[in-house]
Amino acid sequence: MSEKRRLTLKDIARELGISVSTASRALNSYPGISDETIKLVKDFAEKHNYVPNTMAVNFRKNKTMTLGLVVPEIIHYFFSSVVSGAIQTAKKHGYNVFVSQTDELLQNEIITCRAMLSSSVDGLLISLSNETNDCEHIQEILDEGKPVVQIDKVSDNLPTPKVIVDDYQGSFNGVQHLIDQGYKKIAHLAGWKEVKNSFERKRGYLEALKKNKLELDPSWVFHCKDISEEEGFTFAQRLMESSNPPDAIFCITDLVAMGVLKYLKSKKYKVPDQIGVLGFSNWQMAGLVTPSLSSVDQHGFQMGIKATEILINLLKSNTLGGDETVELKTGLVIRESSML
Amino acid sequence: MSEKRRLTLKDIARELGISVSTASRALNSYPGISDETIKLVKDFAEKHNYVPNTMAVNFRKNKTMTLGLVVPEIIHYFFSSVVSGAIQTAKKHGYNVFVSQTDELLQNEIITCRAMLSSSVDGLLISLSNETNDCEHIQEILDEGKPVVQIDKVSDNLPTPKVIVDDYQGSFNGVQHLIDQGYKKIAHLAGWKEVKNSFERKRGYLEALKKNKLELDPSWVFHCKDISEEEGFTFAQRLMESSNPPDAIFCITDLVAMGVLKYLKSKKYKVPDQIGVLGFSNWQMAGLVTPSLSSVDQHGFQMGIKATEILINLLKSNTLGGDETVELKTGLVIRESSML
Repeated sequence: MSEKRRLTLKDIARELGISVSTASRALNSYPGISDETIKLVKDFAEKHNYVPNTMAVNFRKNKTMTLGLVVPEIIHYFFSSVVSGAIQTAKKHGYNVFVSQTDELLQNEIITCRAMLSSSVDGLLISLSNETNDCEHIQEILDEGKPVVQIDKVSDNLPTPKVIVDDYQGSFNGVQHLIDQGYKKIAHLAGWKEVKNSFERKRGYLEALKKNKLELDPSWVFHCKDISEEEGFTFAQRLMESSNPPDAIFCITDLVAMGVLKYLKSKKYKVPDQIGVLGFSNWQMAGLVTPSLSSVDQHGFQMGIKATEILINLLKSNTLGGDETVELKTGLVIRESSML
Repeated sequence: MSEKRRLTLKDIARELGISVSTASRALNSYPGISDETIKLVKDFAEKHNYVPNTMAVNFRKNKTMTLGLVVPEIIHYFFSSVVSGAIQTAKKHGYNVFVSQTDELLQNEIITCRAMLSSSVDGLLISLSNETNDCEHIQEILDEGKPVVQIDKVSDNLPTPKVIVDDYQGSFNGVQHLIDQGYKKIAHLAGWKEVKNSFERKRGYLEALKKNKLELDPSWVFHCKDISEEEGFTFAQRLMESSNPPDAIFCITDLVAMGVLKYLKSKKYKVPDQIGVLGFSNWQMAGLVTPSLSSVDQHGFQMGIKATEILINLLKSNTLGGDETVELKTGLVIRESSML
């Protein structure tokens, strides 16, 4: 903490008797600043080895000890768990982390990836937005020789290491648990068809029904767009008011399941007796709601740790890494909402 | 999206028939790379106007259109709401946001503030860690002519605009509500004594008791260190097992209140009949637990919006702003846990 303080813009301004903003503009040769002032400030800065900020130093060293982490939505418990795991691991190795969120929009993802590149992060961790198909903006980062590790929502088109969970198996095991409990008419509130982990979870659901020779009514599958509590509420209502209502609902995430529970509560359905509910992600709130929510646990914190370890190893060995995939096992946390 | 693609390190490597990593090292004159290779790569780069990344361009322009946002813990719902509000507002004005978290540690705050400065954010939004007293690391940013806006956890020692909530009044109103409901023996699980918003919330609690001439047993006040669910559980146990148990508990945040509810549930206390519970922050889960949790709402999303608007206005007017404080009003959301 007691390192010598470097010369700041404020010091220059004070020494020369001008404002900080004038000093800044002079250094950058802004129009409207006289040539004398520009010369005065630049000469002073040069004489005293002024460095605008550590950026210039980093620029020479080409190292910032900062990692970028891009996620769709920080506010979601799963992603904030990933963020926590990543930051903890990065700090252990002396790295700082800049986090950015895309709101699930490709356009935002492109902008923030370019900003990450501009700010010279040493490497990038990214979980793709639902909209992302073409990955040119991430390829640009690889093309600069900076390693990238994909987390959870990944694209097979990008030749980078990936850390994912066994969405298919997690989903299959969850639905098998519902079947073992005696539920026979199981609905699924799915995610986007084109997104890999949604697709895999739906596949696990379909396979579990098939293996157990259970009825599959196509009207039991809805695809969420926003993956929101509101959609859970609305689709639960449609399911329960239909001519062939299900006796259990498996949801793409706990947030959607919260909406389902809210609807069922409002209509006085008995959970789990009349209808079972299963979520995916095991959010913090899953254990706090009543009835508590059974959920497939995808270990976000562990994913953050693992992905960051891989990235830091790539940085140490100065390589971009290959196309390998680390698949973490999901768990199943059985609580009141599915325990008959 | 169809702008001309700039020359990348990969292009250079391909053109010269060397690896990307060799090209990168050559450009940076690393030891172990032959002088011929260094000259070859540097000449090629110069000839084709290669820019390592947009950093160099930004360095000249001294503008990155990126804002820094430093918070204690992203995983906390209040802060992730602030983050969401800030990002939404920044995007509206064409700014990108890098978020960083300090885990409530001063050391991390210093490191990340320096990294933010290094990466040339145009300005900074910050909510201080519990440990922060000396603000030299933030003063450094101001000294570079970059504006800073403080949010929620602020220091009066820093001459920057601040966006806070009326912690004192919010707390006073909340405790007054408990008193109006008929609770007479009200305990408080407080935060750190030295942290301004914890201090103000405790002051509101004490004033409400005083104004209503209610008993204050010093053993009813505990100071949380981690502000965690576990502490809520532990302190609730101590309170209820004491010789003078309270009939209501007011908690510094909803997370602590969740621990209190968990303990009371485990011991079959009837909430709100035997004991009332009130939180602060109005987390997403407050409405989802049973009994649902009454809470002082501090409008994190609005705070993020307001602080970001102030910062962007400072950037537009090229000033650092003054010492003004914007105080947002808290609300009180009354739910089952305090409704007799």
